[in-house]
Amino acid sequence: MGQLTGGDPSLLRRINSAVVLRALRAAGSPTLTDLTRVTGLSRPTVEGVVEGLIGTGLVVEAGAEEGARRQGRPARRYRFRAEAGHLLGIEIGSHRVAVLLSGLDGRVIGAGTKDVAETASADERLERVRAAVADLLRRAGVPRDSLRAVGVGSPGIVEADGTVRLGTALPGWTGLPLGERLRRSFRCPVQVENDANAAAVAEHWKGAAQDTDDMVFVMAGLSPGAGSLIGGRLHRGYGGAAGEIGALHLLGRDVTPEKLLSTTGEPLHPLDEQAVAEVFTMARRGDERAVAAVERFIQRLVHDVAALVLAMDPELVVVGGWAAGLDGVLDPLRRELERYCLRPPRVAQSLLGEAAVATGALRLALDHVEEELFAVEKTVTTRRR
Amino acid sequence: MGQLTGGDPSLLRRINSAVVLRALRAAGSPTLTDLTRVTGLSRPTVEGVVEGLIGTGLVVEAGAEEGARRQGRPARRYRFRAEAGHLLGIEIGSHRVAVLLSGLDGRVIGAGTKDVAETASADERLERVRAAVADLLRRAGVPRDSLRAVGVGSPGIVEADGTVRLGTALPGWTGLPLGERLRRSFRCPVQVENDANAAAVAEHWKGAAQDTDDMVFVMAGLSPGAGSLIGGRLHRGYGGAAGEIGALHLLGRDVTPEKLLSTTGEPLHPLDEQAVAEVFTMARRGDERAVAAVERFIQRLVHDVAALVLAMDPELVVVGGWAAGLDGVLDPLRRELERYCLRPPRVAQSLLGEAAVATGALRLALDHVEEELFAVEKTVTTRRR
Repeated sequence: MGQLTGGDPSLLRRINSAVVLRALRAAGSPTLTDLTRVTGLSRPTVEGVVEGLIGTGLVVEAGAEEGARRQGRPARRYRFRAEAGHLLGIEIGSHRVAVLLSGLDGRVIGAGTKDVAETASADERLERVRAAVADLLRRAGVPRDSLRAVGVGSPGIVEADGTVRLGTALPGWTGLPLGERLRRSFRCPVQVENDANAAAVAEHWKGAAQDTDDMVFVMAGLSPGAGSLIGGRLHRGYGGAAGEIGALHLLGRDVTPEKLLSTTGEPLHPLDEQAVAEVFTMARRGDERAVAAVERFIQRLVHDVAALVLAMDPELVVVGGWAAGLDGVLDPLRRELERYCLRPPRVAQSLLGEAAVATGALRLALDHVEEELFAVEKTVTTRRR
Repeated sequence: MGQLTGGDPSLLRRINSAVVLRALRAAGSPTLTDLTRVTGLSRPTVEGVVEGLIGTGLVVEAGAEEGARRQGRPARRYRFRAEAGHLLGIEIGSHRVAVLLSGLDGRVIGAGTKDVAETASADERLERVRAAVADLLRRAGVPRDSLRAVGVGSPGIVEADGTVRLGTALPGWTGLPLGERLRRSFRCPVQVENDANAAAVAEHWKGAAQDTDDMVFVMAGLSPGAGSLIGGRLHRGYGGAAGEIGALHLLGRDVTPEKLLSTTGEPLHPLDEQAVAEVFTMARRGDERAVAAVERFIQRLVHDVAALVLAMDPELVVVGGWAAGLDGVLDPLRRELERYCLRPPRVAQSLLGEAAVATGALRLALDHVEEELFAVEKTVTTRRR
């Protein structure tokens, strides 16, 4: 049981501070009277809290020109300083690194990408991350010490501390203490998350899944991965490995997708997206072997996604990754799910496309900061069993 | 935000009452002094609350003989009256109906079963439920109006209101308003849950999964189902269909388990457990066709469970249902999961066996009553986003 009796003045101050800050962020530039009304706190309390927040730099008095001047001396107005700190969302992929920059409100104010070779070592890849971040910060005129949190999305099973337990898609990734390595560069909290998990968070925040809290994001590619939200919260699994449906093709000794999509008998390289795209192009032109290869591939994708849907029962499946944009993936998937699932979910294409992973990473950074700034409930609530 | 300022005297009374009741149930027969110490409430508050609880019949003064008599006038002691109300946990299966009876503390004080024909209609099956309950109550000397909550576990996808959305295992089950039908008999809250979900809850409560909050229960049979706990809470899925992995065999037009297990070319009847057991017996005796059939069946079960494990990433898989007890199921399952899952879970056999579903149903009834009696947090907490 949380203690409800007794009083902890510093806790009360923190609660009041978070309540006022939240109200400030939600409103445009409220007066003290507005804040008193919205929060239900007394005017002296609100005044004291606002003074304190101005001291931390999180709040500033809005220019008097914004206020009404009719009465000679207008009421003072205040606003949340989103520019008091900055956040980064970073995707570390096999072909490129992408970075998004925002203020404390999560609004994107800058973006940058750098290409990276599939075969790059972990050190080389991290160097590209640092270069992309440095470029972006310089262009945006944001000093590095203004960063308050960094989110990172990357392929692989990621431990809670940011270590990559298993990551076969990127050379040198398995065992890499990715969080620790990046924390050395940033000196602020770094959250590392599986790329499909980050994309799920992104689609829920700004993409195709804004209207549901129970969704699965499928990163459709040769080895599909997935991320799930249950009740609006990321389901990472006990060991961070939830949604690793790509391993399903190993079961029953089925052939790999690389073989399924081959038109020559020789498997494609798992990361050779161009070769895969060519097979799809050939199929559109009517090449029989390509048509058969694509059908095999789609059948496999449908099977993997259906297994996930049967286990999780989401309201919505969002399909992203490079394969989502190809013709002939979404409709067959929808049709087959309707045929085989007891309660078929809606199927939608990713709205964020290539930006999904970095956007989700940014949201994770924002979550971290919001928890710090606004985490009132965390302190005063107790959890049922 | 929950209102933290201002005071609601009736809310405060409820909170204090729940706190005292919980302390009373946890302790043996505490004195007012004990309760004051444990709850941190003032003595007059505790006295008032205990008076109120005695009024409701939930608390009684323990016999003075239990107290110390050394001081002439011993301190009064109080105890929670588990016998102030009763709970039922009911399994409605294809071959039998099982009922457990407990007091308000969830301790089982009676049990009964009745056989029922596979082919029984929904009405006949419900009649068997009523007969089993009536028998049990009579034998235990518990009046029907002492029932405070009833939990029910049954095959099928069950809606939140207790309607069976889809239930092919029992005749007439699909579309049956099972909760509504049973509420007519009981005049107390009735919680209906999918049987595998109920079994998952049971293994977590009293069985093989007491040490983890992230587990999957697999009801191993011809058409396997599963129930999952995530963070100690049942994951029902958006439409209550989570874990329906039995449908996986439809994908890719694989043959059904009934065909896999056949040694004659003719599929077995899906509910003919005896025919299935015979195939296993023949396999143990070395019959080649039976050995091959069992291998096919186990391979399928492993595939279905692996799909679930890859999607959910549990810490523990508990295998129950009739197939769990057969030789040659658990070890191959364990071995194959270790081979194919990125982070293989522990695999354990159900400890509750045939009692799992009814035990889980009883726990659901207990959850309901505890929420009513002890749900303090529910009222005073707020949820993040």
